[in-house]
Amino acid sequence: MRKTILLFIFWMNISVLIAENYKADWNSLDKRPIPEWFQNAKFGIFVHWGLYSVPAWAPNTGDVYSKYAEWYWHRLNPEDKDGELFRVHHEKMYGKDFRYQDFAGNFKAEMFNPEQWAEIFSNSGAKYVVLTSKHHEGFALWPSAQSVNWNSVDIGPHRDICGDLANAVRQKGMRMGFYYSLYEWHHPLYKNNVNQYVEEHMLPQLKDLVVRYKPDVVWADGEWEHPSSTWKSEDFLAWLYNESPVSSTVVVNDRWGEETRSRHGSFYTTEYDLIHDNNSKDAVFTHPWEECRGIAGSFGYNRNENLEDYSSAEELIHILIDKVSRGGNLLLNVGPTADGRIPVIMQQRLAEIGAWLRVNGEAIYDTRKWDENLENENSGIRFTCKGKDLYVFVDKWDDRPFSIKGVGKVKKVTMLGTDEKIKFSYKNNTLTIVPPKLDMHSVPCSYAWVYKLENAFLEK
Amino acid sequence: MRKTILLFIFWMNISVLIAENYKADWNSLDKRPIPEWFQNAKFGIFVHWGLYSVPAWAPNTGDVYSKYAEWYWHRLNPEDKDGELFRVHHEKMYGKDFRYQDFAGNFKAEMFNPEQWAEIFSNSGAKYVVLTSKHHEGFALWPSAQSVNWNSVDIGPHRDICGDLANAVRQKGMRMGFYYSLYEWHHPLYKNNVNQYVEEHMLPQLKDLVVRYKPDVVWADGEWEHPSSTWKSEDFLAWLYNESPVSSTVVVNDRWGEETRSRHGSFYTTEYDLIHDNNSKDAVFTHPWEECRGIAGSFGYNRNENLEDYSSAEELIHILIDKVSRGGNLLLNVGPTADGRIPVIMQQRLAEIGAWLRVNGEAIYDTRKWDENLENENSGIRFTCKGKDLYVFVDKWDDRPFSIKGVGKVKKVTMLGTDEKIKFSYKNNTLTIVPPKLDMHSVPCSYAWVYKLENAFLEK
Amino acid sequence: MRKTILLFIFWMNISVLIAENYKADWNSLDKRPIPEWFQNAKFGIFVHWGLYSVPAWAPNTGDVYSKYAEWYWHRLNPEDKDGELFRVHHEKMYGKDFRYQDFAGNFKAEMFNPEQWAEIFSNSGAKYVVLTSKHHEGFALWPSAQSVNWNSVDIGPHRDICGDLANAVRQKGMRMGFYYSLYEWHHPLYKNNVNQYVEEHMLPQLKDLVVRYKPDVVWADGEWEHPSSTWKSEDFLAWLYNESPVSSTVVVNDRWGEETRSRHGSFYTTEYDLIHDNNSKDAVFTHPWEECRGIAGSFGYNRNENLEDYSSAEELIHILIDKVSRGGNLLLNVGPTADGRIPVIMQQRLAEIGAWLRVNGEAIYDTRKWDENLENENSGIRFTCKGKDLYVFVDKWDDRPFSIKGVGKVKKVTMLGTDEKIKFSYKNNTLTIVPPKLDMHSVPCSYAWVYKLENAFLEK
Amino acid sequence: MRKTILLFIFWMNISVLIAENYKADWNSLDKRPIPEWFQNAKFGIFVHWGLYSVPAWAPNTGDVYSKYAEWYWHRLNPEDKDGELFRVHHEKMYGKDFRYQDFAGNFKAEMFNPEQWAEIFSNSGAKYVVLTSKHHEGFALWPSAQSVNWNSVDIGPHRDICGDLANAVRQKGMRMGFYYSLYEWHHPLYKNNVNQYVEEHMLPQLKDLVVRYKPDVVWADGEWEHPSSTWKSEDFLAWLYNESPVSSTVVVNDRWGEETRSRHGSFYTTEYDLIHDNNSKDAVFTHPWEECRGIAGSFGYNRNENLEDYSSAEELIHILIDKVSRGGNLLLNVGPTADGRIPVIMQQRLAEIGAWLRVNGEAIYDTRKWDENLENENSGIRFTCKGKDLYVFVDKWDDRPFSIKGVGKVKKVTMLGTDEKIKFSYKNNTLTIVPPKLDMHSVPCSYAWVYKLENAFLEK
Repeated sequence: MRKTILLFIFWMNISVLIAENYKADWNSLDKRPIPEWFQNAKFGIFVHWGLYSVPAWAPNTGDVYSKYAEWYWHRLNPEDKDGELFRVHHEKMYGKDFRYQDFAGNFKAEMFNPEQWAEIFSNSGAKYVVLTSKHHEGFALWPSAQSVNWNSVDIGPHRDICGDLANAVRQKGMRMGFYYSLYEWHHPLYKNNVNQYVEEHMLPQLKDLVVRYKPDVVWADGEWEHPSSTWKSEDFLAWLYNESPVSSTVVVNDRWGEETRSRHGSFYTTEYDLIHDNNSKDAVFTHPWEECRGIAGSFGYNRNENLEDYSSAEELIHILIDKVSRGGNLLLNVGPTADGRIPVIMQQRLAEIGAWLRVNGEAIYDTRKWDENLENENSGIRFTCKGKDLYVFVDKWDDRPFSIKGVGKVKKVTMLGTDEKIKFSYKNNTLTIVPPKLDMHSVPCSYAWVYKLENAFLEK
Repeated sequence: MRKTILLFIFWMNISVLIAENYKADWNSLDKRPIPEWFQNAKFGIFVHWGLYSVPAWAPNTGDVYSKYAEWYWHRLNPEDKDGELFRVHHEKMYGKDFRYQDFAGNFKAEMFNPEQWAEIFSNSGAKYVVLTSKHHEGFALWPSAQSVNWNSVDIGPHRDICGDLANAVRQKGMRMGFYYSLYEWHHPLYKNNVNQYVEEHMLPQLKDLVVRYKPDVVWADGEWEHPSSTWKSEDFLAWLYNESPVSSTVVVNDRWGEETRSRHGSFYTTEYDLIHDNNSKDAVFTHPWEECRGIAGSFGYNRNENLEDYSSAEELIHILIDKVSRGGNLLLNVGPTADGRIPVIMQQRLAEIGAWLRVNGEAIYDTRKWDENLENENSGIRFTCKGKDLYVFVDKWDDRPFSIKGVGKVKKVTMLGTDEKIKFSYKNNTLTIVPPKLDMHSVPCSYAWVYKLENAFLEK
Repeated sequence: MRKTILLFIFWMNISVLIAENYKADWNSLDKRPIPEWFQNAKFGIFVHWGLYSVPAWAPNTGDVYSKYAEWYWHRLNPEDKDGELFRVHHEKMYGKDFRYQDFAGNFKAEMFNPEQWAEIFSNSGAKYVVLTSKHHEGFALWPSAQSVNWNSVDIGPHRDICGDLANAVRQKGMRMGFYYSLYEWHHPLYKNNVNQYVEEHMLPQLKDLVVRYKPDVVWADGEWEHPSSTWKSEDFLAWLYNESPVSSTVVVNDRWGEETRSRHGSFYTTEYDLIHDNNSKDAVFTHPWEECRGIAGSFGYNRNENLEDYSSAEELIHILIDKVSRGGNLLLNVGPTADGRIPVIMQQRLAEIGAWLRVNGEAIYDTRKWDENLENENSGIRFTCKGKDLYVFVDKWDDRPFSIKGVGKVKKVTMLGTDEKIKFSYKNNTLTIVPPKLDMHSVPCSYAWVYKLENAFLEK
Repeated sequence: MRKTILLFIFWMNISVLIAENYKADWNSLDKRPIPEWFQNAKFGIFVHWGLYSVPAWAPNTGDVYSKYAEWYWHRLNPEDKDGELFRVHHEKMYGKDFRYQDFAGNFKAEMFNPEQWAEIFSNSGAKYVVLTSKHHEGFALWPSAQSVNWNSVDIGPHRDICGDLANAVRQKGMRMGFYYSLYEWHHPLYKNNVNQYVEEHMLPQLKDLVVRYKPDVVWADGEWEHPSSTWKSEDFLAWLYNESPVSSTVVVNDRWGEETRSRHGSFYTTEYDLIHDNNSKDAVFTHPWEECRGIAGSFGYNRNENLEDYSSAEELIHILIDKVSRGGNLLLNVGPTADGRIPVIMQQRLAEIGAWLRVNGEAIYDTRKWDENLENENSGIRFTCKGKDLYVFVDKWDDRPFSIKGVGKVKKVTMLGTDEKIKFSYKNNTLTIVPPKLDMHSVPCSYAWVYKLENAFLEK
């Protein structure tokens, strides 16, 4: 009995030690190891939903800067040089006197079914979901006391979207996170007195979000106009890591100030392959990271995107493989409609990824990149590893044998999803695999195929 | 030269003394004399305008508590026992899922013409205007940083209504004031932490209003759920009287806490003749006071009011005379439509009051009540006085001579607006006036007629 | 008993003779005497209500041609030279792609209360009501089979406005009539094949209106682009006079073809005093006629009209007297709002007319003009007569005696609404009246006063 | 020279003979051979677009009768026993007073791009398009003089949708047809006097459609409440075949009266495999016919349909093969959104069919069913033939050899889309084919594969 007590005290000390030992500076914060779950999850769903889902429009020009429908409000500003086509569209459709905020009453979300969303996401093989709790427009998807009557409970949908989706997502065994924009384009406090904005608006709001919904991911954005010291990001993260109810599980991204991308945060972010700090390119790949992108080009739903603007299931699966093989996660974006539906073409893409992952998930989840893959890099083949096993991804079917350098004397080679025996040979640290004869009937999946090499690593 | 300087310094000291010597407690605040202009003005226009002007509806039941269209949002609450008919109407018209905030986009004010409003008000003879800068709904009619996207610049009208109206009103030589509701029915801070609400939301907002628009009246309301100490009303008023840019000119009403009506403030308020503190009835009449009421029954525009609900010009002029003769002001309310118009019937009433005041204004403006009027009180005759002159108001024409007790040996009696000679006699401190023979052509005005008695007061 | 039967048969023959003896040509039609009720009624209410009540706007320029809000659709046509300001307004308010027909869904009439309307009309002293069953826009206010889904039952109000108002009006003892526009600006049949339009659309629709609602007045308009032969007006009127269910009671106006104004019809029409055929000016005054005009300048409700645009009660009463004294009726227009209300300012004007008529109606209803009034014409005095009595209207009060030429030796002179004895003298066929000494208390009404001269006519 | 003239006269006589020789009775009309193009085309696109695209909703119950979103208006009728869920939805979303016609203003089609639609349809391999010119709601998608202000030019889109789409479709080399509903649920003439409705509304409208747009298909519907004699279908078709501008090219379906399905018309119709006249089942298969169905369950766009409600590309290609192999066409339906877009999931399905047809179109277009296919019927293999060639469709890949009975001594067997040599043997009128070894890389297409058997027919 005494022992138990002593142990308990000992455990408490340790846990206190663990839980409260980060200081509000990057040196200390950067020492926190990323919670294991994130790097095991690999595949998450990003959801961009807000008032921009009402006009749901961006020009179809192929221009990288004007394709984002969620920037609609900003584009209406006559000084936004990428906004000309937005302004022409807006005036024609709604008249000169109609402003962005007037869309609020038309964001009704009347068909929003969080359980259905969660099922679609879960069936895609995603392990976590990140919802825009508040984008740059400042409209909150939860009853934020800092955003009275400018949130989804007070006006428009009249629902706690953050809460309802978090519950449904967790019911399905996935983790829930929130995107949060530090800045707001049109908040008067932000424009007039950023310090007051941070103290009275941003930090209380962000903490409220954390305390209410206990997110597994806090995905900041809109950080680029000020250094992290202005945003008091270090203070917030110290609170998040030490005191918050999610101190032991939460992960955060790297967008906490103009100097922080690819430098600080649980994981670094890329966006449509863009790495934000060219000088630290290597850093991206040794640190946990995550690529975010849309199924089509825009994050917020864009009615102006047609089939040719959507990535195919094949492309998306190849992107997932590419990111995971290089140590990253994929956060694939879905843009619901203003009435609360996930466009069926997005459901289609997610279902195809899910079908592929049901066969090949073993090679994705819980794996890590294979550091020795450099020699094989340009061959169109990708790798992941888990324990002693190596997974080899082939994204174009080819009957001809192919070789992998740098592996050990593998005992067994299989193809995931099939019992077909795979012929292989080993010579000079090089494994040569003979693809099986699989026709349309016997092939286990489409788009990419995975060989599992057991005990694949060279003893060092 | 030296003298002048010394005097200047002396004057400065005094003025500093006057301007900064109020402490944040009622004892001190109550010592501030009311700025002269208010009691001289006598007649002001109240304007109730907000989101309630969109549904613009209250039941036509004659019930005193349910006639206010500006309480629409509150009435939708199923627990509001006066709200049944509101809820039936709302569901029928807008459907179950439509909430009050969704009206914001329909408050367009597209025909709002502040110069026209100011001209209508000025022509009515009003000397000041009081606009609802924010009613209990919390919607601000100026770009309040405490009410982001829930104000008339961000959503709906997209205009600074407080600023635009203040400018137009002042251009016409009238004074401008603002109504401001201390509480907000649905503000989450108010409901959860009233102290924080007061500190972070209410006081900054109220001070912003004062500093921006330099109002001549601050007309508080919505005070009844908390004592003035909770609202920090004493602090605010000390600031207003000592430091604000309107310290020497501003007047405030008596609604600063559950205990303050008819007790504190520059002037006390009655509403449809209701005196809020029955125990201090006398107090009302020795202290400056103001009656507020609508032209019809509701303050916010109510589409459900018809001709029989509107007071006639005659009734309104009689009310004005009654209030002024008892030392009060009349703040007569106008409820504009959501598109920004003053209903023509209200224009009609205001024009008739103006026509009457152009003849009889001398007997209203700058006057004071006549304290010795008690003996004459029940005779249907009213009085005001100015200097040595007494004004006698007769609101029903009668050919027969009538008497006034308690006046001195008057030298001259005239009727305002006409050169007709008025016969009178004096005996036993009683003046007897013989009404002139005036027909429809020679009578100077309608509804009420004023005799001016020069040198009317008894020497004491 | 036998006699009775014979008489009955005789009466039937006559009535059949009367009812069926009109041919479809003007010569015959013009012989039909106007049903007595119309010239006895004197005062009717015109109601313009339709989709134009939704934008409810015309510019406030004072221009006579652009003040009509019911012409809104026509003004939007770029070729309408009076439409420039309409087009600027429309594009600013609704955007380029919003067309007139799109207003249909916003014409809701949700507060339309026909019983209340009928009471307001009845209290004004009106004896008949004429509603725009269909204006030039073609939108029918009843479920017309010729205007499917472009009528008030199918779209917008979802009510049979013609039927509902007719019932309520008749309940109050008034007669009900309908305005009907022969042409429609945008009907494709009208533009491409007017004969087919008349045969298949217009005549069936007009007859349906008559058969369904049995109107006492058929008030045609929009006739000016074609002669009455094209409109088949003679055929229609022959049917109306001979076969229709209202053959013995209906009256029609004079707008049945480009050549018919002031020439054919039960009564001729003037509009804001405009007589449409200058060459037959005299004709107007010997034939029954009716003046129509708005309380303000527009027929359809115009939100852009303010108090200064409304005629005062005094002006309206003077207009009524003027028209009746010259043998005409007054059809005073009311323009309800899109939600179904009669603006309170219009209620006010109607109530004042009603109050005046309750005192002076004896001098208006059932009277005829006095043909010998010419000598007195320019004196600001007006006359009507009934039996042996002459009514004298004075519209500005004047204490001085005044004279009337051309009357007989009157036995008795009274003023309607008062028992005051009126002094008068008679000499040289001239009656001189001494106005009574009436003050504000004893005067029976405002705005105009009526002397009744019993047995006023000279024996001839 | 004389000869030429004579020949010309002779030719004219003949052409006149051909063009005008159908009588207005089924016996004669049924003798007209179907224009060749229709049976060669095989694959067409059906487009259902109308006011129902605004609510765009049907319950997701799986019930066959309530899945059609285009029946929305009918379902709102309390007597429609399949409408309960529609009514609950409607009242919740729009309120009690909102009727179907009020949707007209919200049918804006602002993103309608007919050229893009035509390109999507053309790329799908479709050879013709059939658009709902007017569904049972009566709303016309062209400026019909019989449907004034209840058509897409007058209200809502403000475009001639029939004309604009016909032009774009023909530009792409496809043929254009129109669906037209004979009855209209709520047309008062239809309900009160069907003969008048047919004479004055339906026939003029239908002929206008034909004369204006010269359709290649007239696809009637809504015929079931009356026999063809009431609809005057024989008269119309005689006019169409003899006199109309499309007399030589037009095809019509079989919905011309309650007795006509599977009995009369250029081609018979099935709908979701339902054959409407069970007693004449064989007739369906010897006469030209066409199956219509949606990509999901509804014809009009239904927002309530999710991925699981959509047929996969594989299913759709199998359906196409099945219908064509049995002598039918497939008219696959697309339901655009109210703003004018083809949902991307539909674009996806059409693109996949197009990709398949680019490989295998040779076996679809211009072919006929193989009458001797009976013996092979249940084997999951389908056939078409063209000239001497037989096409064999296999819809599940299987490595094992398979046999076809009843064919001649084929000289050559190939698989469409590949040069792979195909092994085969012939014995006892039975051809045995050995499937080639094709992997994911070499297989020419997905979902179904086609063997071409040259000179396949037995000499008889």
